[in-house]
Amino acid sequence: MSGIIATYQIYDQVANLEKRAESIALGLTVGSWTNLPQNDQIQLLKHKGKVTSVRVDESAGNRTKGIIEIFYPSHNFTADLPAILTTVFGKLSLDGEIKLIDLHFSNDLLALFPGPKFGISAIREKLQVFDRPLLMSIFKSVIGRDLNYIGEELRNQALGGVDLIKDDEILFDTCTSLEERVVQGKNILQQVFESNGQRTLYAVNLTGRTFELKEKAKRAAELGADIFLFNVFAYGLDVLQSLVEDPDISVPIMAHPAISGAFTSSPDYGIESSLLLGKLVRLAGADFSLFPSPYGSVSMEKSKTLKIAEYLTEPNGLLKTFPVPSAGIHPGLVPQLIADFGNEQVINAGGGVHGHPDGPIGGGKAFREAIAATLSGITLEDYANQAPSLQKAIELWGVRS
Amino acid sequence: MSGIIATYQIYDQVANLEKRAESIALGLTVGSWTNLPQNDQIQLLKHKGKVTSVRVDESAGNRTKGIIEIFYPSHNFTADLPAILTTVFGKLSLDGEIKLIDLHFSNDLLALFPGPKFGISAIREKLQVFDRPLLMSIFKSVIGRDLNYIGEELRNQALGGVDLIKDDEILFDTCTSLEERVVQGKNILQQVFESNGQRTLYAVNLTGRTFELKEKAKRAAELGADIFLFNVFAYGLDVLQSLVEDPDISVPIMAHPAISGAFTSSPDYGIESSLLLGKLVRLAGADFSLFPSPYGSVSMEKSKTLKIAEYLTEPNGLLKTFPVPSAGIHPGLVPQLIADFGNEQVINAGGGVHGHPDGPIGGGKAFREAIAATLSGITLEDYANQAPSLQKAIELWGVRS
Ligand SMILES: [Mg+2]
Ligand SMILES: [Mg+2]
Repeated sequence: MSGIIATYQIYDQVANLEKRAESIALGLTVGSWTNLPQNDQIQLLKHKGKVTSVRVDESAGNRTKGIIEIFYPSHNFTADLPAILTTVFGKLSLDGEIKLIDLHFSNDLLALFPGPKFGISAIREKLQVFDRPLLMSIFKSVIGRDLNYIGEELRNQALGGVDLIKDDEILFDTCTSLEERVVQGKNILQQVFESNGQRTLYAVNLTGRTFELKEKAKRAAELGADIFLFNVFAYGLDVLQSLVEDPDISVPIMAHPAISGAFTSSPDYGIESSLLLGKLVRLAGADFSLFPSPYGSVSMEKSKTLKIAEYLTEPNGLLKTFPVPSAGIHPGLVPQLIADFGNEQVINAGGGVHGHPDGPIGGGKAFREAIAATLSGITLEDYANQAPSLQKAIELWGVRS
Repeated sequence: MSGIIATYQIYDQVANLEKRAESIALGLTVGSWTNLPQNDQIQLLKHKGKVTSVRVDESAGNRTKGIIEIFYPSHNFTADLPAILTTVFGKLSLDGEIKLIDLHFSNDLLALFPGPKFGISAIREKLQVFDRPLLMSIFKSVIGRDLNYIGEELRNQALGGVDLIKDDEILFDTCTSLEERVVQGKNILQQVFESNGQRTLYAVNLTGRTFELKEKAKRAAELGADIFLFNVFAYGLDVLQSLVEDPDISVPIMAHPAISGAFTSSPDYGIESSLLLGKLVRLAGADFSLFPSPYGSVSMEKSKTLKIAEYLTEPNGLLKTFPVPSAGIHPGLVPQLIADFGNEQVINAGGGVHGHPDGPIGGGKAFREAIAATLSGITLEDYANQAPSLQKAIELWGVRS
């Protein structure tokens, strides 16, 4: 049947779980049932929510954690994420300790969403890199800096051999404009390519008022923007989807998780990270999804990060989104990163590139060396004998083993 | 100085609060400071975040709840809510137990936001009701119903004497369209007005894809829409602001809190309800803000609801937004509601109108009687002797005293 099954985590007494689930299924659809005249029941049946599963996750005294699943028929909503999220977690988000864990879309519904316009394969084509994780570097401390400074930082990062460079998500069009950064970035990265054959794509931060984003994106696309970084949760998943669906905006989009922690961080409230940063970000069409890595100080439980990556890449009829586990990444973590997330990921570092004793050029090189070592099955320590940048990185940050 | 002071609640050891605050203030602005060359310090000074307050809220063993305040200069962001929220709570929302409690905008920044286009006074003008709280009724169980059914429900609610009637927030344009509901609503409410002089405004749910909202709103405005109900948190505060700022959409907007619980419900993560449903919803320009009442089963602490109402109505240079404490409201609660929220509120009921023994007509009358009694300083019990609808309501739901 066409519709969505929503999975929730709730707390209640064991005896009440079933009743609570029934009351949600009716309350968020037809309102009431048993007291309806038979004619109304016949007419409304196709709109009625249904409890499809109720199970006890953990019990401790009076407080039982339950996982319940409710089916919402497609007849009740239009096929857009605002309507869907309002249906399954609108009023309900305010109803005490309840967390939206997952959404299962029927295939006909799923087919109405774009998914990534480029996806992992087309990004690899652009870069001509097919057999290893990509490497991304993040601008560091560029707030308040002028175009020259940003240009030099861009060049240095590219010279280290990174595939991607992203703006800081808090870089807005104050000291420099999106258009300026695109044009200058294009020139500098072309110079680097001509000098050493290194291809690097620049993800510029697409920001501003919602209803100006499309025009801004189109101008930047005409100027040759490689990728847009986008703070999707500052806007809304539907805005991301609209950018992706616009045929005049043929630029990959990198979803940044800014503000998403306000939804995902609580164990008992809000929305599960794998649903938000994994399934929905892919559905709406991001080509890359950044999320906290399980290694750094701003970290997320490893099982949650793996689930995000799974939702970004599992076969579901949509193109695949690159998982980008972020924060706390240094070259010594590369074997662990590849063991955990495999080849289909972007290894993304800020401090781990810029903090290298030889600066961002040394940092990029050290990462590339760490990736080469790991894919050859050689330990970083062994490989570092012939790889001075990696050697210095290991001396500074160590190796995670 | 032009900028924003953000207040956060964090947990740390007492000795670390100051350090943590400093690290946020730098990390979310210029990145680093003491190791910068002096020339850079001179250039970046106007971009540097500053800790303006650090205090201990509660201490318990190693875990201290601290309240910290950080100033972010306007130089760092464009004056739009996506940029502001990303700056003050982007990456930070993912950084462990931290809650964004408040934002203080400098006056020059505040002046760049529209606030309500109508506000409490102009809504009262439309209704010609100046001296009492307004009364609103919510459609009940209309999912899957046709236009005739909705029309009859609308008529019955209006005949009870309510000032406002709102669509269910989960009513999308599937069985009926926004345009159809506007046209039919207009006719029926005009008939009621001509029959008995009762003025009622209908808040229709404005839904669909983000980039189609403006055109849809304009068409509905031309057809005479009274008010738009809007699930702002399914879209984004900036979308609300853009609807308000559009000169061709001269229709008041009622912000529904659907999905907001995913931000506000946790005591330790996310965004404080008074900031989101109070200050920011007003800043972005809603004329009404619904939030959970402190009385019902879906409830919010009373102090939080009062703070929301305060932020919606305190003098700040913007027009005032009607507070609409919602859920669990019946006529017997009216004295309490007025004691708590005063005259400048919308008393909003669903079950408390429809569940009346005489149906929605009796329900509306009972509320109007309860309001008249309370404003005359007469107890509901005394007034009910001459007011049969109120009498029946009290028998069913009691009086909160
Ligand atoms: Mg950053
Ligand atoms: Mg409702």
